[in-house]
Amino acid sequence: MEKYVLIVAGGEGSRLPSGMPKQFIELNNLPLLMHTFRAFSFLDASIVLVLPENGISLWEELCQKHSFSISHKVVSGGPERFHSVKSGLKQIPDDALVGIHDGVRPMVSRDTIERAFDMAERKGNGVPAIPLRESVRETDHALNRPFDRKQLRIVQTPQVFFSTLIKKAYNCSFDERFTDDATVLEAAGFPINLTEGSEENIKVTLPVDLAIAEYLLSKH
Amino acid sequence: MEKYVLIVAGGEGSRLPSGMPKQFIELNNLPLLMHTFRAFSFLDASIVLVLPENGISLWEELCQKHSFSISHKVVSGGPERFHSVKSGLKQIPDDALVGIHDGVRPMVSRDTIERAFDMAERKGNGVPAIPLRESVRETDHALNRPFDRKQLRIVQTPQVFFSTLIKKAYNCSFDERFTDDATVLEAAGFPINLTEGSEENIKVTLPVDLAIAEYLLSKH
Repeated sequence: MEKYVLIVAGGEGSRLPSGMPKQFIELNNLPLLMHTFRAFSFLDASIVLVLPENGISLWEELCQKHSFSISHKVVSGGPERFHSVKSGLKQIPDDALVGIHDGVRPMVSRDTIERAFDMAERKGNGVPAIPLRESVRETDHALNRPFDRKQLRIVQTPQVFFSTLIKKAYNCSFDERFTDDATVLEAAGFPINLTEGSEENIKVTLPVDLAIAEYLLSKH
Repeated sequence: MEKYVLIVAGGEGSRLPSGMPKQFIELNNLPLLMHTFRAFSFLDASIVLVLPENGISLWEELCQKHSFSISHKVVSGGPERFHSVKSGLKQIPDDALVGIHDGVRPMVSRDTIERAFDMAERKGNGVPAIPLRESVRETDHALNRPFDRKQLRIVQTPQVFFSTLIKKAYNCSFDERFTDDATVLEAAGFPINLTEGSEENIKVTLPVDLAIAEYLLSKH
């Protein structure tokens, strides 16, 4: 089945103190987003990149500066991640597989990507997830109680889908329950298949995450 | 009320690839455990350190090498964290406050420590916790469903207790539900009070955590 990767980098990166939106920050002399592209370069897939409208010209400059040659199409996003994905999905044909990936997860491994695509090919969707390492408690106003972390999985990306189904699922209005693409597909009535993610596949959202990403990149 | 800190470093650190148990590994030229001691140095408290039996002589050498002068008593631990804490609590008098802290959490802030001690002084116990940043799903064999992360808190240390109560609570046998000290007190019938922890108060258990800790220490 034909493969597509939708890299979602529509956010303005308001959580990092530097002025630069986080997807453009340089890690080991390369913008974070280019590391993300590289992680998918082994895959025979077409890439669609969703950027905030006001970030597109900066991205083009960076591509020129770094002689960035991985072919891709750029589309502009919307106010929420939901709208950015919806906008990107318009570029994906039916009857294909599409992996929707957070632009700020540059450390995703080949294994994680392959497992999610394989599962989606067999069962319609594949969503990488990892166990929770820390003890957690469940709170409910004043009360709180222990919660068995063995029952929980932290969800990552790429979340891979049979494109016909995820496009149909996204043909709806935004709902607060939509924390990722799996929850959108699920609202359309499809069960989700979890695959094994990896500890290193972190989402870079805080300054400390940049330090982690630099450390991990230096080990590869 | 008199204050005590019980630093628990009874583990053998099997998860790090270097031969050295992780509590002794050097971060910015100082063993991790000494950074942890330093985090408590503002507090007027007596410190008890629990170490594995076979780590005590190494600790003494390190103290000499680094001219480490923070006064403390050392006791040897047991096979599980539960037994190590139980062993340490024997050194704590009744009618005091005791903060039980993971030796491998060197980044704990003064604010986190003060909030937990203040809560324990007022209500018998104080347990630092932070919100979960990632999307999670709940799994139950083949099925899995979204789980509202807003209901969850990641539990940290120091967990601070009125010593009379936590010593009584630990007067029991090990149970698999005991993932931390709060769950032991809770099993004895006491409700737990959560206080605000901090993102930086990480537990150093994997090699990447050492990199994070070095980065955070370099910022202080």
